[in-house]
Amino acid sequence: MVRAGAGRPAGRTPTARLKDVAARAGVSVKTASNVINNYPHITPATRARVEQAIRELHYRPNLSARQLKHGKAGFLALAVPAMESPYFAELAALVSAEATRLGYLMLLDTTGADAAAERLVLDGVRTHLIDGVVFSPLALSADEIADRADQLPMVLLGERAIPPGYDHVAVDSVAAARSVTEHLVSLGRRRVAAIGRESVRGTASVRLDGYQQALAAAGLPVDPGLVRGVAQYGREDGRRAMHELLALPERPDAVFCFNDLMAVGALRACAEAGVRVPEEVAVAGFDDIAEGRYTTPTLTTVAADLEVLAREALRLLIARIEDAADGPESVQVPWALQVRESTVGPR
Amino acid sequence: MVRAGAGRPAGRTPTARLKDVAARAGVSVKTASNVINNYPHITPATRARVEQAIRELHYRPNLSARQLKHGKAGFLALAVPAMESPYFAELAALVSAEATRLGYLMLLDTTGADAAAERLVLDGVRTHLIDGVVFSPLALSADEIADRADQLPMVLLGERAIPPGYDHVAVDSVAAARSVTEHLVSLGRRRVAAIGRESVRGTASVRLDGYQQALAAAGLPVDPGLVRGVAQYGREDGRRAMHELLALPERPDAVFCFNDLMAVGALRACAEAGVRVPEEVAVAGFDDIAEGRYTTPTLTTVAADLEVLAREALRLLIARIEDAADGPESVQVPWALQVRESTVGPR
Repeated sequence: MVRAGAGRPAGRTPTARLKDVAARAGVSVKTASNVINNYPHITPATRARVEQAIRELHYRPNLSARQLKHGKAGFLALAVPAMESPYFAELAALVSAEATRLGYLMLLDTTGADAAAERLVLDGVRTHLIDGVVFSPLALSADEIADRADQLPMVLLGERAIPPGYDHVAVDSVAAARSVTEHLVSLGRRRVAAIGRESVRGTASVRLDGYQQALAAAGLPVDPGLVRGVAQYGREDGRRAMHELLALPERPDAVFCFNDLMAVGALRACAEAGVRVPEEVAVAGFDDIAEGRYTTPTLTTVAADLEVLAREALRLLIARIEDAADGPESVQVPWALQVRESTVGPR
Repeated sequence: MVRAGAGRPAGRTPTARLKDVAARAGVSVKTASNVINNYPHITPATRARVEQAIRELHYRPNLSARQLKHGKAGFLALAVPAMESPYFAELAALVSAEATRLGYLMLLDTTGADAAAERLVLDGVRTHLIDGVVFSPLALSADEIADRADQLPMVLLGERAIPPGYDHVAVDSVAAARSVTEHLVSLGRRRVAAIGRESVRGTASVRLDGYQQALAAAGLPVDPGLVRGVAQYGREDGRRAMHELLALPERPDAVFCFNDLMAVGALRACAEAGVRVPEEVAVAGFDDIAEGRYTTPTLTTVAADLEVLAREALRLLIARIEDAADGPESVQVPWALQVRESTVGPR
C-alpha cells in the first residue's frame, strides 16, 4: 500500500515546467535553472523564491529530456575502498557535490579494498547504466588494471602504480612524505619511525620513499626496525603498531603514520602507555581528516586540496566521456603541511 | 581517446555466461551465482575458484536480464544529510552492502540537511530511475513529508516526526537518552548539561525528552541555562557549546551531547580549558561512531545496532516495492549504553 500524494493540494499543476517556476518566482528561466543546478552566486532571497515556486508547483526537473538531448544516461560512479574511512567519505561528498553541479548523478561504490570487487569495477558490471567511473584502486596492480575488458571511460585516483594511457589525479606523496619527515627531523628528532601498509606498491611505497629520502638527506640511518607494516590503514592498526614501537628497547622519538586514521590510533596508544606527545614522541599523519583537528593533541598532517582533486577528476572524466580529451593527463593536487600540537605542542 | 581493452588477451571469450564460469570453476551454477551475489557461507577456496574463472573469462553479470525478469531497474537510493558525518557514512556503508547482497544497486544522495534538496528526494527527481528510497530527513516537517507529490516507495529513518502511513525504522531515542542521563546521575553528578540542536522537532526533541525525564525521576531540577542549542551537530558546535558551559558562573559536572561528533568537540574544549574529564566534567555522546573509541578519554555513548537498522530498512522497502507489504510498519532498533572513560575514567 503506497500512499500516493496524501494531502496533495487539489488544484496543483500536474505538469509544471521550468518557465512556470521562473514566472511564479519572478525570475528569468536562466536564473531558475541556475538555482536548480545549484550554481553559486545566487542570492539567498532569489534561491528562496525559486524554491518556494518549485514547492508550490510540485515542479520536477526533467532529467529525461536532458539525457535525451545529450544522449547520456547522466550517471557516473565513484569506486573507493571504504566509505567508513573519513578520507574517502569526505572525498565522496566533494565528488558527489561536483557531479550534481555538473548535472550528473553519482553512484558510490565501495570495494572494501577487495580484489574481486575492484575487478567488477574494471569489468564494467554497470556499463549499460553509467557513463564513466572515478576509481581509487587499492588491491589491484597496474597490470591488472591495464588488462581490463571494458571500454568505460575511467579516471584513476591515488598513488597506486598507474598503467600507461589513463587519466590520473594524485597528490605528490613522495614530496609530501619527505616534507613531514623533514619537519620531524627539524625538531631535533633522530629516531623517526614510520607506520604504513606492508606492500611494495601504491601509497605505502611512495610515502616510504619520501620518508627515506628525508632521512638520507639529514644523514640519518634508516632503521628497518622502525618501519612497521600493518594489515589495513585503520585506527586499530595504528594503535597496535605504535604499541610495538613503544615496546622496543630503544624507542622512536617521532613517528610518521601514512594516514591520519593510523595516527589517531598511535595517539591513543601513547595515551594508554602514558607516553607524552609530543614531548617524548612526536606524531604526524597524512590526509587532514576533520577528526585530527579535534584530537588532543591536535594532529600534524598533510592537507591535500580535495576540492581541486574532485573538480579535476570530473573535468577529465567528462572530457573523456564527451570525447573532447586529447592524450591522457596526469594532474597533481596541491598540498600543504599542517603543523599542529602532536609535533610542536600547544602554542 | 578511450583505450579499449589494452592488453586484453587475444583469445578471450567475448560472451561468457554464468554456466561457463561455473564449469571452469568446477562448481554448480547456483554456487557461482551465490559468489557473484555475495551470499555468505561460501568457503574461501570456492570463492577464489569462482573469482578466478570470472577473471579469466571476463564474465560480466547480466543485470539487464535480471531487470527484465523482475521488471525492475534494480536501483535504490539512500538519502542522508551528510556523508562527512561518520554516523551516516557508517550507516551508508552497511545499507549499501545489504542492498548489494540483495541484488540492488544503491545510489547515495546527500541532502546537506537542506530543505530544497530534501524536497527533491520527496518529489522523486529520480523516479524514472529508481525503485525506492530510504530517507533520513532532517530539515523537513512531517507535514511537508506527507505532502509529497510522488508515489515512490519510501522508508523513513530517524527520530523526526513521521507522518502517518509510512514504514519507519528508528532507535527509541527517548529511552536511550534517559539511560545516558540516568548513568550520569548514578555517578553522583547533579548539574547535568545537554548539548543539542535548537529545534523542537526530531532528534533534539526526543533526546531532550529522555534527558528531562531522567532528571525529573532523580528529583533534579531542569536548569534551562544548562541546555545549549547548536546550529549543527558537528564537532565545532560541540566545542563552542562546551566552552560556553565551562564559562558559566556555576559549571556543569556532566554533559550529555546529543551525538558523538559534538561530544568529541566537547572533549576538545575541556582539553583546551584544562578541565579534567571525567573528574571535573563527565562527557557522554550518542551514536558510537568509531572515532569515540580512540579519543582520550574514550567516549561513553549509545550504540544502536546499525546492521539491524540497515537490514530492516531494506526488508521494508523491498516488501513495499514488490507490493508484498501490509500496513505500514514501525521497527525499533536495539541499542545499548557503552560506558567508557569519559564518564568513569580508565579502569
